Amino acid sequence: AMAGWGWARAVRGLLLDVSGVLYDSGADGGVPIAGSAEAVRRIKASGLKLQLCTNETQATRESFVRKLRAMGFDISVAQVTAPAPAACRLLSQRGLRPHLLVHDDLIPEFAEIDKTNPNCVVLGDAAENFTYANLNEAFRLLIGMEKPVLISLGKGRYYKETDGLKLDVGAYMKALEYACDIQAEVVGKPAKRFFESALAELGVPPEQAVMIGDDIVSDVGGAQQCGMRAVQVRTGKYRPSDENHPEVKPDAYVNNLAEAVDIILQQL
Amino acid sequence: AMAGWGWARAVRGLLLDVSGVLYDSGADGGVPIAGSAEAVRRIKASGLKLQLCTNETQATRESFVRKLRAMGFDISVAQVTAPAPAACRLLSQRGLRPHLLVHDDLIPEFAEIDKTNPNCVVLGDAAENFTYANLNEAFRLLIGMEKPVLISLGKGRYYKETDGLKLDVGAYMKALEYACDIQAEVVGKPAKRFFESALAELGVPPEQAVMIGDDIVSDVGGAQQCGMRAVQVRTGKYRPSDENHPEVKPDAYVNNLAEAVDIILQQL
Repeated sequence: AMAGWGWARAVRGLLLDVSGVLYDSGADGGVPIAGSAEAVRRIKASGLKLQLCTNETQATRESFVRKLRAMGFDISVAQVTAPAPAACRLLSQRGLRPHLLVHDDLIPEFAEIDKTNPNCVVLGDAAENFTYANLNEAFRLLIGMEKPVLISLGKGRYYKETDGLKLDVGAYMKALEYACDIQAEVVGKPAKRFFESALAELGVPPEQAVMIGDDIVSDVGGAQQCGMRAVQVRTGKYRPSDENHPEVKPDAYVNNLAEAVDIILQQL
Repeated sequence: AMAGWGWARAVRGLLLDVSGVLYDSGADGGVPIAGSAEAVRRIKASGLKLQLCTNETQATRESFVRKLRAMGFDISVAQVTAPAPAACRLLSQRGLRPHLLVHDDLIPEFAEIDKTNPNCVVLGDAAENFTYANLNEAFRLLIGMEKPVLISLGKGRYYKETDGLKLDVGAYMKALEYACDIQAEVVGKPAKRFFESALAELGVPPEQAVMIGDDIVSDVGGAQQCGMRAVQVRTGKYRPSDENHPEVKPDAYVNNLAEAVDIILQQL
């Protein structure tokens, strides 16, 4: 057994981040990370439970899963926990009518939600929709509200696409927070409530679950705050300086998902 | 004499904010605020010193002054203290070579500065240049630097144009600060060094100067921290809620610049 992995004997379910763990995203659709599709098959074959826990907001879960399946990942829609459905539940519960500043391809997730006469703004990774005009529009709506409500689908700093690093939704969230002097409500990793939803869908308690991700704060820090173990992969947005993070220390590092699955399966 | 204005007897020089005090800016070039051009003439005629202290970064001082003169303001280039020339001094002193994310019309201010192989980013109110692609480019340059240096020309939250409120440079500064986990250096109001430059150009000590502006934080708070008196006008971006600001309290409120000048001249 690998030193430092004794805790893995208790693991009954895996939560996997997607971008940077299963594949590297990009304008071209993305490229699978070597060994990850086979690793997903080995998890299923082992009888361990599996749930994807993603802050992906550039597509509906349906089209996201189609893309993953086309890349060779044996995944179903029910195995994906993503921010937009969680945001829809929150909007319905609180009677909020959103103005959406999100990626065009995410809009169908909000089909059932009343968007007339908005009383909040929902911010996702809008990518090319992060225009000066769209940001000003979202700002004007917020500043015009008696009590501005900004719901942000994640708060990532940046992510890596095949053509380079891109600013993530968190940067634009900070811009609107500062301009309006407000605090956004984050739906998605690292929010505790979001990890709890993912665990409920995974069907195991936190002490029997491990999160595997490339983001030291959103994946590793968020999961650990819910009582889960968390492993950082050295793929995707991983940077060597993450290993000196002042606050977050993963339970283990691996070179990639395949290595994590190898080691976990050896412990069982 | 007006109650609460006794301090105005000591005033020998006025620092004026421009947008929201002399005129309301807009895509159409802007509209003078009623009485402000006459107020500037009265200041000159009184023998009081006058300097404009602006965070304007959408034009060179030369073209800015041309615009003001066309609107009827009797102002010279030497009477304008603006962030870009201050930033150029700082860049030269520290051997910094900027990547510029600024308004096209500001670029000539940096004509003498070496911009090859950038080792810092200078951020201004880039307006339509705040595109997703340009923000990603500035971010990638910063995150790629061993020690990222971000110089921001002001840190305003938003400003008012004739067609509505617009996000100001401070919002984009916060986005890049968050994405890179850095602190920007602010050149412009409310930085103390910037007000000190303006006072030096005005030629009076802080206790004999008054700042007149529409921004409770950048104009009023910044000037007061330099030992000056500060008056807020109820024009431009002024909002009634400013009068309950938790930290900043102006020495006086006026409806507009004309009223401020009326009262100050009455005290002399």
